[in-house]
Amino acid sequence: MTYELYYWPIQGRGEFARLILEDAGADYVDVTRSRDGMKRMQDIVANGVPGLLPFAPPFVHVDDIWVAQSALIASFLGERLGLAPSEAPARYAALTIMLTIADFMNEVHDTHHPVAVDKYYKEQKAPAKLRAESFREKRLPKFLRYFERNLERNGNGVFAGKDVSYVDLAAFQIVEGLTFAFPKTFKKHHKKVPLLLALRDRVAARPRIAAYLASDRRYAFSEHGIFRHYPELDGGTAAPRRRSR
Amino acid sequence: MTYELYYWPIQGRGEFARLILEDAGADYVDVTRSRDGMKRMQDIVANGVPGLLPFAPPFVHVDDIWVAQSALIASFLGERLGLAPSEAPARYAALTIMLTIADFMNEVHDTHHPVAVDKYYKEQKAPAKLRAESFREKRLPKFLRYFERNLERNGNGVFAGKDVSYVDLAAFQIVEGLTFAFPKTFKKHHKKVPLLLALRDRVAARPRIAAYLASDRRYAFSEHGIFRHYPELDGGTAAPRRRSR
Repeated sequence: MTYELYYWPIQGRGEFARLILEDAGADYVDVTRSRDGMKRMQDIVANGVPGLLPFAPPFVHVDDIWVAQSALIASFLGERLGLAPSEAPARYAALTIMLTIADFMNEVHDTHHPVAVDKYYKEQKAPAKLRAESFREKRLPKFLRYFERNLERNGNGVFAGKDVSYVDLAAFQIVEGLTFAFPKTFKKHHKKVPLLLALRDRVAARPRIAAYLASDRRYAFSEHGIFRHYPELDGGTAAPRRRSR
Repeated sequence: MTYELYYWPIQGRGEFARLILEDAGADYVDVTRSRDGMKRMQDIVANGVPGLLPFAPPFVHVDDIWVAQSALIASFLGERLGLAPSEAPARYAALTIMLTIADFMNEVHDTHHPVAVDKYYKEQKAPAKLRAESFREKRLPKFLRYFERNLERNGNGVFAGKDVSYVDLAAFQIVEGLTFAFPKTFKKHHKKVPLLLALRDRVAARPRIAAYLASDRRYAFSEHGIFRHYPELDGGTAAPRRRSR
């Protein structure tokens, strides 16, 4: 039983799935790493398969099940691979928080694409500056407070249940992303999110996660993903453009 | 066993839950309709309960389970109340599509709030015009195509499985919302979404839904919800402001 993950060759919204598959030591294929993988993925986006006509990657396939939407993929994989709480109340708590993480990803994305998903950042820099300001001053503090308080509420150093689950792996990715994209802003909040930072360290120390992060299976952050480092959106001034000689 | 729905006294993101509870004839309380309901909801948002510290309404409570996030609430209620497919592949297909409907709601919201969630529409009219243009020209056609093709893919006149499920009730709400908020734009697409419009009619004709829509339990669309009718965002000119005498 091999899991197939279909996603672009970036971290982006596919990274939650990769972290779970890696942490569980699952048998999986990151389809777009294979020679014809990109074509196979785009064929499914264009034409669908019997069980799925996705809006966009990522999507996952195993047996006769096809699942899209990053938060659902995370809970689907987490529940099958032993990385989810077993009791109903905690299972729903986990998925509720995971969906809020997905919402957070959308808001991070919209800091650099506030007006048109299909246009480049450089074509929407002025509204992006406004949106990023609102993100830094209102939304990010609200989300960070939500995460920290939910860790306090649950106890055990994790978001739901007693053990590390898929939500905690996703939270790790959020911390890594903020550290990359909004270093200046995020640093100011460090003292307010001790549990979130401790969880980040705990996840990073898990042997399979550590091995994954050190491997070439982990894509680097880049300016093609959700988390992008534009200093001017982090409350600084734009980096000087490199000139060609 | 009474379901408690906590949401603002508007349609908004709580309407998916109301449609399911009504269609199932479930025993439920729309908490903010009670005298102290608004206070109870805001207390939970501020302080949480043992099973939940929500980011925002809506959230639902039954037995020892608390669930937030509109798409998860819909699948949770749908699965408990006989309004969800029973086989695993179709259950995941339903939730995948429901989550895409939730994404669509976010994009509708952002047409009037592209820059700052916490500010009024009138403070972000210029970027809203740009965002709405992108919505009308790129995103809405892409989502409508996604909905129509998924109805074609599944057959049976519904999104997943053989019978009307929570996803179909949500799709009804989407059609109603577009008809209210973007009448001019949506009408241009009518010929391209015959299955979606037929599904809308089929849902509207269900006896309990018809009774609900005719009752005062159904809030009216308004300019406090997700779907708002601003003619200038529908590709027209702004309505003249009413003057007080």
